Amino acid sequence: MADKIYIIKIGGNILDDENKLLSFLDHFAKIRERKILVHGGGKLATQMAERLHIPQKLVEGRRITDGETLKIVTMVYGGWINKNLVAHLQARGCDAIGLCGADGNIIRAHKRIHQTIDYGFAGDIDQINTERLKQWIDLSMVPVVSPITHNGNGQLLNTNADTVAYQVGRALSAWYEVSLVYTFEKKGVMLDVNDDGSMISEIWPAYYAQLKAEGRIYEGMIPKIDNAFAALTGGVKEVIIGQAEQLPGIIANRAGTKITNEKS
Amino acid sequence: MADKIYIIKIGGNILDDENKLLSFLDHFAKIRERKILVHGGGKLATQMAERLHIPQKLVEGRRITDGETLKIVTMVYGGWINKNLVAHLQARGCDAIGLCGADGNIIRAHKRIHQTIDYGFAGDIDQINTERLKQWIDLSMVPVVSPITHNGNGQLLNTNADTVAYQVGRALSAWYEVSLVYTFEKKGVMLDVNDDGSMISEIWPAYYAQLKAEGRIYEGMIPKIDNAFAALTGGVKEVIIGQAEQLPGIIANRAGTKITNEKS
Repeated sequence: MADKIYIIKIGGNILDDENKLLSFLDHFAKIRERKILVHGGGKLATQMAERLHIPQKLVEGRRITDGETLKIVTMVYGGWINKNLVAHLQARGCDAIGLCGADGNIIRAHKRIHQTIDYGFAGDIDQINTERLKQWIDLSMVPVVSPITHNGNGQLLNTNADTVAYQVGRALSAWYEVSLVYTFEKKGVMLDVNDDGSMISEIWPAYYAQLKAEGRIYEGMIPKIDNAFAALTGGVKEVIIGQAEQLPGIIANRAGTKITNEKS
Repeated sequence: MADKIYIIKIGGNILDDENKLLSFLDHFAKIRERKILVHGGGKLATQMAERLHIPQKLVEGRRITDGETLKIVTMVYGGWINKNLVAHLQARGCDAIGLCGADGNIIRAHKRIHQTIDYGFAGDIDQINTERLKQWIDLSMVPVVSPITHNGNGQLLNTNADTVAYQVGRALSAWYEVSLVYTFEKKGVMLDVNDDGSMISEIWPAYYAQLKAEGRIYEGMIPKIDNAFAALTGGVKEVIIGQAEQLPGIIANRAGTKITNEKS
C-alpha cells in the first residue's frame, strides 16, 4: 500500500488570526504522516494594495492580476506569509521548506487565456514536478507551497490556492495515498448553514446526487464539492472539508465532511 | 580533491538594472560547476518603504530593522526578488530553488545584541545547516539565498547578504573547494580608484600588508579585503572581488581581484 500524505490548504480565515494560526501550526507539526501545506493569502495582500494605492480590479468576482498586483501577491504570499509559516514550523520541529511554483520548477502554468477578459498574470496549471516534490518529501522535508507559479520563461503567475492543492494532490496520487484537506470557516458541509449540528460527515456520489436533487445542499458549497469529486476522479483517495481549528479531529477521522468515491 | 563550488553574491548595482541582471543570469546559468547565488536587496526595499511611508532608521550607517522594515525586506528580498531570480534561472535551464534561512533551517541566527544600539530584527548568524544544503546541491539544485534568517523560535531576522555568503562559504568548505565571488560596481580592487587600468589581479597576505603600509589601498576596500582574508582563514579556497558583468571572465580566471592565502 502506498504511503499516506496529507495536503492541507489554509486560507484567510486562519492566516488573518495569529493565535488561531499558531495553534493550527502546533497541530500541523504533530501530524506523523507525510504532509504538505498549501496557503492562500488573506487580508494582508488587500491591505498592502490599499497602502500602496493600487486599485484591485475584480471581474465577475475574480481578481485581475496586473503587474503591480503580481508584485504584491509575490511579496505577500511568496515572501511574508510563506517565510513566516516556515519559521513557525521550524520552531515546532517540523522541517518545512517554503516554495513557490518556480522553485525546483514544481508548478508550471500558463497565462490564462480568455476570449473577452484579460485576467493579467493569472496562471492556469500545466504540470506538477512530482519527481522533485517526492525527492524532498522522501528527505523528510515538509513543503509549504504559496500559490505563485511560473510559465518556464521567467514569468511568475498568480494561481488559486485551492487549485494548487488540488493539482498537487492529483499529481502525487501516482505515488501516495493522498488525503486532501480544504479548511474554511465552517466545521464542514452543513444541511442547514445556520445549524452546526446539521453537518454531513460523509458524502459519496449517490448521496450527493440525492442531496442536490432535494435542494438540500447550500449553493455556495456546490463548486467546492464538485472540485472534491474531480480530485477523487484524478486519483486522490479522499477529500475532507472542515475547520482549520479542528485539524486533530480531521486527522483522527472525527471532524469535517469527508468526500469519497464509496460510502465507508 | 573536493568538488568546486562557486558562491556568488550580487547586490543592488545589478539587481536594479534588469538588462544587466538578465545578462548576468545567462552567464550564471552556464557555470558548469556547483553554484549558489546569494542576493541582497537593492533600491526596491527602500522604494517600498517610501511608498508605505515607513521611515528608514539608520544608526552609524546601518539600517535598523524594526517590525515594519522586517516585513518589507522579507517581502522584497525573500519574495519578489528571490522568486523572480528563480523564475529567470529556471527559464535558463538552471534548476534553482529560492531559500531564506528558515527554509530547511539552513541559516540559524540570533537577534543582534549591542550595549547601546537596538538594531531591531537584525540577525547575526550562529549556524549553517550544511548537511541540508549539500543534499540539495548533490541533487543538482542551485540554491538562491535571500539574506533573511531565523532564530529557531519562529522569528525571522534580517542579515547582511555579504555575511550570508561568507558564512555559507566557510561552512561548505568542509565538503567543497569554495570560490567566494563578491560582485560590486568596480572591476576589482584598484590602486587608483579613478583608473580601471590600476586593478590588482591578485592579493596575498604579504602583498596586502605592503599595500596597506604604503597607504595604496582605497580605505573603503579595506573591510572587504579583511573579510575576504577571514573567509580564507575559515577554509574558503579563494575570494574574488569583481564586476557582475564580468562573471565569465571571473570564472575563467581572467577578471576580478583574487584574494588568496598564497601567491599563485
